[in-house]
Amino acid sequence: MKTDIQIAQEAKMQHIRDIAAKLNIEEEDLEYYGKYKAKFSDALWEKVKSNPDGKLVLVTAINPTPAGEGKTTTTVGLGQALGLLDKKAVIALREPSLGPCFGIKGGAAGGGNAQVVPMEDLNLHFTGDFHAITSANNLLAAMLDNHIQQGNTLEIDPGQIVWKRCMDINDRVLRNVVIGLGRKVDGVVREDHFVITVASEIMAIFCLACDMQDLKKRLGEIIVAYTYDGKPVSAKDLNAVGAMSALLKDAIKPNLVQTLENTPALVHGGPFANIAHGCNSVRATKTALKLADIVVTEAGFGADLGAEKFFDIKCQSAGLSPDAVVLVATVRALKYNGGVDKKELGAENLEALEKGIVNLEKHIENLQKYGVPVVVTLNRFTSDTELELAFVKKFCEKRGCEFALSEVWEKGGKGGITLAEKVIDVLDSKESHFKPLYDLNLTVKEKIETIAGKIYGAIGVTYDSVANKAISQIEELGYGKLPICMAKNQYSLSDDATKLGRPEGFSIHIREVYLSAGAGFIVAITGTVTTMPGLPKIPAAENIDVNEKGIITGLF
Amino acid sequence: MKTDIQIAQEAKMQHIRDIAAKLNIEEEDLEYYGKYKAKFSDALWEKVKSNPDGKLVLVTAINPTPAGEGKTTTTVGLGQALGLLDKKAVIALREPSLGPCFGIKGGAAGGGNAQVVPMEDLNLHFTGDFHAITSANNLLAAMLDNHIQQGNTLEIDPGQIVWKRCMDINDRVLRNVVIGLGRKVDGVVREDHFVITVASEIMAIFCLACDMQDLKKRLGEIIVAYTYDGKPVSAKDLNAVGAMSALLKDAIKPNLVQTLENTPALVHGGPFANIAHGCNSVRATKTALKLADIVVTEAGFGADLGAEKFFDIKCQSAGLSPDAVVLVATVRALKYNGGVDKKELGAENLEALEKGIVNLEKHIENLQKYGVPVVVTLNRFTSDTELELAFVKKFCEKRGCEFALSEVWEKGGKGGITLAEKVIDVLDSKESHFKPLYDLNLTVKEKIETIAGKIYGAIGVTYDSVANKAISQIEELGYGKLPICMAKNQYSLSDDATKLGRPEGFSIHIREVYLSAGAGFIVAITGTVTTMPGLPKIPAAENIDVNEKGIITGLF
Repeated sequence: MKTDIQIAQEAKMQHIRDIAAKLNIEEEDLEYYGKYKAKFSDALWEKVKSNPDGKLVLVTAINPTPAGEGKTTTTVGLGQALGLLDKKAVIALREPSLGPCFGIKGGAAGGGNAQVVPMEDLNLHFTGDFHAITSANNLLAAMLDNHIQQGNTLEIDPGQIVWKRCMDINDRVLRNVVIGLGRKVDGVVREDHFVITVASEIMAIFCLACDMQDLKKRLGEIIVAYTYDGKPVSAKDLNAVGAMSALLKDAIKPNLVQTLENTPALVHGGPFANIAHGCNSVRATKTALKLADIVVTEAGFGADLGAEKFFDIKCQSAGLSPDAVVLVATVRALKYNGGVDKKELGAENLEALEKGIVNLEKHIENLQKYGVPVVVTLNRFTSDTELELAFVKKFCEKRGCEFALSEVWEKGGKGGITLAEKVIDVLDSKESHFKPLYDLNLTVKEKIETIAGKIYGAIGVTYDSVANKAISQIEELGYGKLPICMAKNQYSLSDDATKLGRPEGFSIHIREVYLSAGAGFIVAITGTVTTMPGLPKIPAAENIDVNEKGIITGLF
Repeated sequence: MKTDIQIAQEAKMQHIRDIAAKLNIEEEDLEYYGKYKAKFSDALWEKVKSNPDGKLVLVTAINPTPAGEGKTTTTVGLGQALGLLDKKAVIALREPSLGPCFGIKGGAAGGGNAQVVPMEDLNLHFTGDFHAITSANNLLAAMLDNHIQQGNTLEIDPGQIVWKRCMDINDRVLRNVVIGLGRKVDGVVREDHFVITVASEIMAIFCLACDMQDLKKRLGEIIVAYTYDGKPVSAKDLNAVGAMSALLKDAIKPNLVQTLENTPALVHGGPFANIAHGCNSVRATKTALKLADIVVTEAGFGADLGAEKFFDIKCQSAGLSPDAVVLVATVRALKYNGGVDKKELGAENLEALEKGIVNLEKHIENLQKYGVPVVVTLNRFTSDTELELAFVKKFCEKRGCEFALSEVWEKGGKGGITLAEKVIDVLDSKESHFKPLYDLNLTVKEKIETIAGKIYGAIGVTYDSVANKAISQIEELGYGKLPICMAKNQYSLSDDATKLGRPEGFSIHIREVYLSAGAGFIVAITGTVTTMPGLPKIPAAENIDVNEKGIITGLF
């Protein structure tokens, strides 16, 4: 069987000029990065902004399991299928992070016959957006420490610095460091931390900013530290905004690539789905809506995290109104939720399926709370039996959602025709009445408790004393009206990763709360979140190679 | 008066396709990065490699002073002038480093009416080459620390790790850090250091590698640490070479841009001129020689450092044979060398000129040792008087070198016609008999002493005990035949920055010696070298801005 990279390298890519032409974009509005990647010029938005918006479809999933769900693969495959049905469709995805490619997971641009290409470029430097974010993040850090070094007129308390350096490499030894050692000229000694680039607040800002003006405003609002008196110090106070924005000026332009079947795909931005909102950029989504009749996008992790943040943070912030949701599940993952061991997932087991399908049920109920029509799709594996498939179909239809099988991994767009037809049907016949889950005017705790209760199914929320203190401080500083960005393990609806299915009777414990004032949300952390991954015993990097013709192997 | 960035932004750039066409390069051999930047495809080299080589002209300078010499400006202006004379000329320059743009100095792509454009892109991310180098450098570091964390089967001594992390930001607090703090899962605690990206050995390798195979060989030879037994551990031992090369696969393709007057310019690679060799990439220079009749290139700092390393490291390693050298001086800098205060340089002072011109004299003598014809040029300032100019002209001609005035800063290519005509004349009429300064088979100390004696004019060389020990170890490990990369202050021919003019009777003191096995040279350090700059009290970053149309200001 061919690997993803082999399939990707055999793709018959079209020149990106021809992909753009499908969206009526002229060559003058493209900035090429080689033959198969382009950024949109700033002028393009001016030309298209009064076009009517296309329909917006979110692809989300049940809670992830080791069995694999294929959310990105489904997103890409659905886009390909819409193309086969002669729909003017665009896919809007996140850019993969460089670091993890060298760790365990390999690339992240779909799989099998439903991929975005050129996959090596996407997984490596792509158009340099993440490097620009790394540079802007670390320039701000350098200016902060330099300010302290050069007299500290802002009276920054080195013990209350919250801004961290970042790097797009999985590098555990940078999680906790001491900087500024040496002589006086080598800086002020303090503890510091590196996060992976996707976890930088600048990444979240980059994805939520609608234009350069908004980007600058948000960058300026980043709180980097507190003074000895406890007053926030912002990036604006350090006069860092202009230079950071200059570093980001090209990065904020959306990137155009294509699928294996030459469907246009905008791949732009990729914030951490944990301490950030995990969706591609607002700029890319908004531009896509002006260019196509149907835009298919996705959000990180399962629907309890990804879809919730997509609706309550991204859509609210950007004024987007989604028209349909595709909820991806697999028979294998549902059986895993029903308690079946990973090795036994290939065998028919209707009992386990019935037990585990409650996870899907809860996500359906949750999505219906947003007033958006839901289509459930099963990403089909060869081991799935007819009885299992029929059971799931019936289960969904009983709950008022549409159902369609998807075989895009194996068959590409052709394998997604049924799903695509179902989605088109829903878009044509069902009206969306999108409304966010909660009112921003609620208190911080009320908002957290609404998410925990209505989405996770928790019976209550408890708070660490530091979290309580942080919430009071945030509200005192006047940031209490911001939406909540929940950081929770993705495997369970609860904050205990081992509780599969549809856990009940549990409380959510909030360990830490902090403000991302530039991104415009309040992060509420349950459990522990690693914002700088490590490499495994044998890193994927050891198997990656490139030959004298520039052909990469081992990136999967 | 207009600033450099204003002049650059008013440039009438041609589409890079049209610049390439001047060199008979077809569109299929270009990989565009926007409209005004392109990389050469790998296939281009195969197409042109059997073309005859053009002539290679090095632009170097007297020891730099605060008065300014304008070496890059002269290089660009000479290229522009050759274009006006209908010569098929290409400029081959280094890429500027990102970090320093936000510190004191601003951009580095020439000045006035002799610049390479688009200057903002050149000074910011350009085509991402430096980010690729940063990534490769830091991936290697992460794999090294992860190896120790995961069992350390290579028996790496954490106290003998020589590989450093890097970042392309001026960030003094990263000079000396402690990493791996926290719990056991957060890595092994050790001291570490960050250097600026241009100081990474990967940058030097990148610039000296002639193709992907050579790059991989050199990357594999990087010594990252020593075992408890004192045996070297290489990047190859860590299985890091393939992944690092994959990260560099696009970066190693030369970049094409243009001057203000649309002369083709290859801007590629930019190693530190101190602990590395400070020349643009071999790949770019070799490709340029196949594409043009005259290639104008430059090397970092004054001729004692830049030209020496260009000849003895780059030319020897790559088999290049330069045809002429242009030695840049200014009347102001010569008077400064003659003891005149910086504020008094505008006044005619023949006595000081006569006193300071010995610096120029020594550089002329040095360059003549390499058997390459020398053209001295004075980068003219309005305050220079006729008597002063005439004095320098006569001085040069007496010493067997050609002389030409240059006014490229003010007048662009037109201001460089006299110089260009002189260079053409030398190329047509004088034969170059290039030979390196020393035989690689000499011992390490003999090589160091040859450079110190013949180029710097020292009467002897002394060594710290650690330097002696390192030299013995390098020779024992079998690396004694490599060339020497001297790291010395750039302001004086001696190792004392305050000794201007032509110091005599001094010794050179070697403080530290280490091996860059991948780059293929031995670094000998005199004095202290900062490989991670800091930001000044008011960083240039504070004045940089970008407006909603993407126009950058304050980058000068």
